[in-house]
Amino acid sequence: MVEPDLVSGYTGGVNDSELSRRSVDPRSNPPVKIALLGCGTVGGGVLRLLRENQESLTQKIGAPLVVKHVLVRDLSRPRVAECNREWLTTDPEVIFNDPELDVVLELMGGEQPAKAYIERAIDRGLTVVTANKFLMATYGPQLLKRASEKEVDLAFEASVGGGIPIIRTLRESLTGDKVESIHGILNGTCNYILTRMRSAGVDFQKALYEAQQLGYAEANPSLDVDGHDAAQKLIICSMLAFGSNFSADASPVEGITKIDTTDFAAAERFGYTIKHLAVARDLGEEISLHTHPAFIPKKSVLANIDDVLNCVFIRGRGLGPCVIVGRGAGDLPTAVSVVADLADVARSRIEDHRGLSTRAIRPHTRKLQPLSELESRYYLRFEVKNSPGVLAEIAGALGAHKVSIERMVQEDAHESATVLMMTHRCKEGALHRALDQLGPSKVLNGPPRFIRVEDI
Amino acid sequence: MVEPDLVSGYTGGVNDSELSRRSVDPRSNPPVKIALLGCGTVGGGVLRLLRENQESLTQKIGAPLVVKHVLVRDLSRPRVAECNREWLTTDPEVIFNDPELDVVLELMGGEQPAKAYIERAIDRGLTVVTANKFLMATYGPQLLKRASEKEVDLAFEASVGGGIPIIRTLRESLTGDKVESIHGILNGTCNYILTRMRSAGVDFQKALYEAQQLGYAEANPSLDVDGHDAAQKLIICSMLAFGSNFSADASPVEGITKIDTTDFAAAERFGYTIKHLAVARDLGEEISLHTHPAFIPKKSVLANIDDVLNCVFIRGRGLGPCVIVGRGAGDLPTAVSVVADLADVARSRIEDHRGLSTRAIRPHTRKLQPLSELESRYYLRFEVKNSPGVLAEIAGALGAHKVSIERMVQEDAHESATVLMMTHRCKEGALHRALDQLGPSKVLNGPPRFIRVEDI
Repeated sequence: MVEPDLVSGYTGGVNDSELSRRSVDPRSNPPVKIALLGCGTVGGGVLRLLRENQESLTQKIGAPLVVKHVLVRDLSRPRVAECNREWLTTDPEVIFNDPELDVVLELMGGEQPAKAYIERAIDRGLTVVTANKFLMATYGPQLLKRASEKEVDLAFEASVGGGIPIIRTLRESLTGDKVESIHGILNGTCNYILTRMRSAGVDFQKALYEAQQLGYAEANPSLDVDGHDAAQKLIICSMLAFGSNFSADASPVEGITKIDTTDFAAAERFGYTIKHLAVARDLGEEISLHTHPAFIPKKSVLANIDDVLNCVFIRGRGLGPCVIVGRGAGDLPTAVSVVADLADVARSRIEDHRGLSTRAIRPHTRKLQPLSELESRYYLRFEVKNSPGVLAEIAGALGAHKVSIERMVQEDAHESATVLMMTHRCKEGALHRALDQLGPSKVLNGPPRFIRVEDI
Repeated sequence: MVEPDLVSGYTGGVNDSELSRRSVDPRSNPPVKIALLGCGTVGGGVLRLLRENQESLTQKIGAPLVVKHVLVRDLSRPRVAECNREWLTTDPEVIFNDPELDVVLELMGGEQPAKAYIERAIDRGLTVVTANKFLMATYGPQLLKRASEKEVDLAFEASVGGGIPIIRTLRESLTGDKVESIHGILNGTCNYILTRMRSAGVDFQKALYEAQQLGYAEANPSLDVDGHDAAQKLIICSMLAFGSNFSADASPVEGITKIDTTDFAAAERFGYTIKHLAVARDLGEEISLHTHPAFIPKKSVLANIDDVLNCVFIRGRGLGPCVIVGRGAGDLPTAVSVVADLADVARSRIEDHRGLSTRAIRPHTRKLQPLSELESRYYLRFEVKNSPGVLAEIAGALGAHKVSIERMVQEDAHESATVLMMTHRCKEGALHRALDQLGPSKVLNGPPRFIRVEDI
């Protein structure tokens, strides 16, 4: 047996004659022809990566990738240098009537016309790669079913967490395991704002303004700071981890707009920090989904995932804990995920797999746990009048509903005071009943606040 | 068009008649028949996962997995409950003469007979999944070439980082990107020992003893604490990230046995912690590989990856930073990776891909940067006689070789003293020449020590 010299001489070349039956020699497979729908930041990033990595992609896929069309709204707008202006068209018919096309990359975002284009592409037998979080959260099961029926692939790594391989890990690495829970820091804007509030002590409005100045937050930041962006990503993760087909708004959502510096000081005092978390748990009978600010222990790996970084903490029954951290947005990170998907589906297309990996995802009806049934620890904050019997009334209401107090701190004991508590585990429904009981009370200066604790 | 009700009614069932051409209905594909070589902790974990996730695996793969043989050395030894004793055999010929077999899982470890068995399996046209780090680091390019030529897959996710999807991320998620660098905490034993030295202030021997008591270190811990285990994993990562085919011992290696509490105190003072790192960088012309203890900034995500956790920090040109953390060893985490690979290759086998994804890995000759050319910052430690001119002599030697000092601290100024320094960036060769110049000096009480700084 000839053993190649690993140190100096082995070139790794594969004997071409051995591969004759189904060759990976790029020259022997026809090019995979693609069209981009949209050429904004992500589309520009994709064109750049395709150019920069042309050679290695051709080798890895077994055929060259050829861009044929780029659908845009405005032909005159400047484009990245890698965009050949001859590709540009404003007419989708040019794309859907091209009989040579193999793959469509949907990089427009939003609902329409993106959804109609994806459906037309699938119906035409084209493979689709999408970065569209909204569409996958809202119509994922439906689009995947349509793709399965037409035997094409629909890939969507870029729809969650930019360049971080969350979707691939859930789809492929955990095939032989059961996902128990997912904790995600899935919105970079929220994470940046909370990081600044904690580290620089600024308030929400100031941190939001900074984020906007740096381009980390939109002029209208509500999708991000209200938590809906993260909640939609959680729906997609849950579909892959648990096979669920919940609607895009199934996850109860709270944003970060009500968090203030008092909460951060309290978190610090109790040994926690505050992150905006999207949480999914498989409870067996039911799935628990909830997206909101949460106290997490300062020593948790997630506590140190700061600024615009995203992160997902997956716990598998066999795998144990697995954390993936990276840039959750941005043109190039997202484009890396689009191109990784493109390489996958292009290879499948050459090999005539006909959407097999897409068909392996089969979302089905799972039951959602009502939030009132959630068992958690809670941070509570009461702004109270400083008068006798206040604490007794609060403690009495909590006790009456079996909400047990683990730690308590009272601050600013002048005319008014702030009472901060950490509870033991209790059901959220019981906590609500206790707080409702205090509602009409004259001892509170405002409605009590609570933040869920995730001990990860 | 009928749109299924996403909230309440959609069951995700795919119309079977639509899938007639190449069905994923498990009943229509013949079972994929597998043999395990070895049934120790990982093999037992694999059998357990196959049983526990039988239904979902069958659905995801499109065919049932059937265990036919389990090769062991001792038929009488107790096995996990999921191991059917009828599978057991001590005779490899039973396996290699079975004409029905599809996939072999090599879970024996070590060089021989594992290598010979993998080669026989490949030559028989069997798909191979291995968890064998040593074999993949030592013979990876050779085994991959052999598999390519025989058009079978050779999958090895479990060879690096237990259940953490490092291999899959490098192979698939970064297809459209260039990996710039990899920093890995790849040995759980080292990480546990260093964590204990830092957090509990114990010395190396005490921490090692603890690790042994907890089953985190072998009775003979040298492969781990000398750094060779991590260095071998780095070779495998480098093969995938940079297409290199370096020999298993190409990476310069240092273990953790010389680290002491003085070094930890110095690291703390300078704002760093000490981790055992495996580092690979693509410098364009050359690849830089080195495995050793390193100072890393306390605020780095890697600084907080403690105990037996493993972690890999990949920097992609487009992707930016991406960190993956998890359990790098253990029966079930490793088994999760084996089963994920098994699901992949089983699907490939059903679909007659003939080793396409394995052929996409084509290691070739890359040039290794000599360690003397490495540019880094360094922590230096001198044990000196406390006499006039000592500092001048040290500073003079460093200056003569253009090693510039960034910070300096002198401690214990009695008869002898400890001088601690952090340098600016310099070439390691220059540092060695400066330290060599001090060698014959009478002002040092022992050889100077240095630790590389990785500012990640």
